[in-house]
Amino acid sequence: MDDISRRALIGAASAGTALAFAGRAGAQAPTPAARPLFGPAPGVAQLSRNENPYGPSPKAIEAMAAAAPKGSYYADVAADRLAAMIAERHGVSPAQVVIGSGSTEILSAIALAWKDKGAILCPGLFWDTTVLYAARKGATVKRVPLKPDMSVDLDGMLAAIGPDVGMIHLCNPNNPTAILIDGDALRAFIARVPPHIPVLIDEAYSELTTRPDHASVTASLKAHPNLIVARTFSKIYGMAGLRIGYALASEANAELMGSYLMSFGGNTAGLAAAIASYDDTAFTTFSKARILEARGMILDAVAKAGLTAAPSETNFVFVKVADANAVQRAMAARNILIRGAYGEWNQWSRVSTGRIEDVKRYCEALPQVAGA
Amino acid sequence: MDDISRRALIGAASAGTALAFAGRAGAQAPTPAARPLFGPAPGVAQLSRNENPYGPSPKAIEAMAAAAPKGSYYADVAADRLAAMIAERHGVSPAQVVIGSGSTEILSAIALAWKDKGAILCPGLFWDTTVLYAARKGATVKRVPLKPDMSVDLDGMLAAIGPDVGMIHLCNPNNPTAILIDGDALRAFIARVPPHIPVLIDEAYSELTTRPDHASVTASLKAHPNLIVARTFSKIYGMAGLRIGYALASEANAELMGSYLMSFGGNTAGLAAAIASYDDTAFTTFSKARILEARGMILDAVAKAGLTAAPSETNFVFVKVADANAVQRAMAARNILIRGAYGEWNQWSRVSTGRIEDVKRYCEALPQVAGA
Repeated sequence: MDDISRRALIGAASAGTALAFAGRAGAQAPTPAARPLFGPAPGVAQLSRNENPYGPSPKAIEAMAAAAPKGSYYADVAADRLAAMIAERHGVSPAQVVIGSGSTEILSAIALAWKDKGAILCPGLFWDTTVLYAARKGATVKRVPLKPDMSVDLDGMLAAIGPDVGMIHLCNPNNPTAILIDGDALRAFIARVPPHIPVLIDEAYSELTTRPDHASVTASLKAHPNLIVARTFSKIYGMAGLRIGYALASEANAELMGSYLMSFGGNTAGLAAAIASYDDTAFTTFSKARILEARGMILDAVAKAGLTAAPSETNFVFVKVADANAVQRAMAARNILIRGAYGEWNQWSRVSTGRIEDVKRYCEALPQVAGA
Repeated sequence: MDDISRRALIGAASAGTALAFAGRAGAQAPTPAARPLFGPAPGVAQLSRNENPYGPSPKAIEAMAAAAPKGSYYADVAADRLAAMIAERHGVSPAQVVIGSGSTEILSAIALAWKDKGAILCPGLFWDTTVLYAARKGATVKRVPLKPDMSVDLDGMLAAIGPDVGMIHLCNPNNPTAILIDGDALRAFIARVPPHIPVLIDEAYSELTTRPDHASVTASLKAHPNLIVARTFSKIYGMAGLRIGYALASEANAELMGSYLMSFGGNTAGLAAAIASYDDTAFTTFSKARILEARGMILDAVAKAGLTAAPSETNFVFVKVADANAVQRAMAARNILIRGAYGEWNQWSRVSTGRIEDVKRYCEALPQVAGA
């Protein structure tokens, strides 16, 4: 979601924010007047935002239409119901579940809640929009460089833990690299973190991995009360615009982060959709299959173009190129929107999976623009 | 909306929060399992939350159903479109409009943005949920008692302005009193506030007043860059569950408050509904007429029961009673949900307008419970 230009998140534009949102201006998107209210303009292949255009599920769409006339009522009962469903699946209490207006709200709340307790320790490159949010409010950020293969340096992070560190924040699979930290390695890491330091794992893309049960660390919540896991309905459920995310944590940490939320934790339509699709495995199976198909097409095209990519376990691919901003511009000239450079990482170009026909256009254009 | 029990806002329950949310437990609401996902259970007259069950508008409902399949896309274009519509109506620039996940998010963001610049100066009784949110994060709150007639003491507030004050926050019409501050009096007040102190007017109920153009101070934004006006789609538009609110301010203040928002400023359904109904005067005329009809019924019943009420310019009435908590309990025994005491103000009982048939039940019960 990193190139969203919402005023909300660019209000206090900093160098960091400019980095996070660099994609849009460079992509020469059509002017707002020419665009439909929701989704890309006709002819535009929107592969820059890690959206999943195969959602929402048909059950979610039906539930939203049915709930629309009830939009006049505050939606707290539905939020409680969704929290109970999530708690049941993960074997935790409902008080350990926090529902937010997207996981972005929750991650921001967490960063604010702990910002005065020490530095936020995190990888040199990850989805840091909410850490940068807190940084603009005074949080200190301590970064550990990625390893040469672009994976997260867990040993380096352990070595960086000191009295200055207030919390740890990872994203797994990582964004924008698409690389998965092995579940066992991550569990070993969590076990070695001092228990007074919260470890936040953003699992936005976890359901898209090859072995979700192995990749996810939610089962470690019982043994490690300092663990916080954030999830979202934006990715496998294809509900990015509907703004429903959640976190699992100890009751004490759930209460603390919940006290920083500013919204009421979801909206009528998003909650109706989340409740209707949470157990809809027919849809999630379909959704994941389309994403894997698109990812396979991209990886094939990358190989055929003589390029390489980081191993992807999610709905985007991090492709090694000569000049990511030049590739972005060349794609934009063909109405194909992808990401440009992430700060200093101009040798890597992120492309999201999307509608198969849009991914096909990317794949056909790649050999022409790879030398850009 | 003050008895919403969302975990988000009661996470760090304090005395202040307990006050703000006291209503629900006391009202003996049906258990969650017995309740529908959205709206009250069958047989329950829900008159405790200042909701408007006559919304959303038919155009909004249609727009939500049409937008549902597009929920997979981030909704920033729609948010920008809505901001442009609001800006055009008020003759300000789009950069002066901040869209939030309900005005609650925006009011919370404002309170956080200014909390370190001094005390928040506000009335002794008003909709202070977001001020209490900031207070739990360290904000100082300086209250000016209401006048004996329960109206806001503007002269007292002017007299309370000192070097310790960082911002001023009012709600007009006020909640829970329902009393309107005259537009001219409020404009004179704003003109006397030192220009370095932001004045935040929460106009959640402004469209429900007898003379909205006179009551609202949005026309003063040009002359007073320190003025901030918050509005919502929750009330006259009947969209409480859909979480769309906004604020109008100077570009600098809009940027500052926007930098504190945690959500992306709206969701697919809420934005679709807001855009579809913003200019739907047929609906707002109908909606307001139903609210005024219900309010008239309540005021008649109050008079017939030998009671008095504060003059109401909104969709709720503040009724003088012997014991608000006892009245709340007696009403709850009849499956009629209203508010209990606001802290020390146990001589005042707030009832919202709602479905005419529900208001009728309240009116019929009032003589029986008035002596409670």
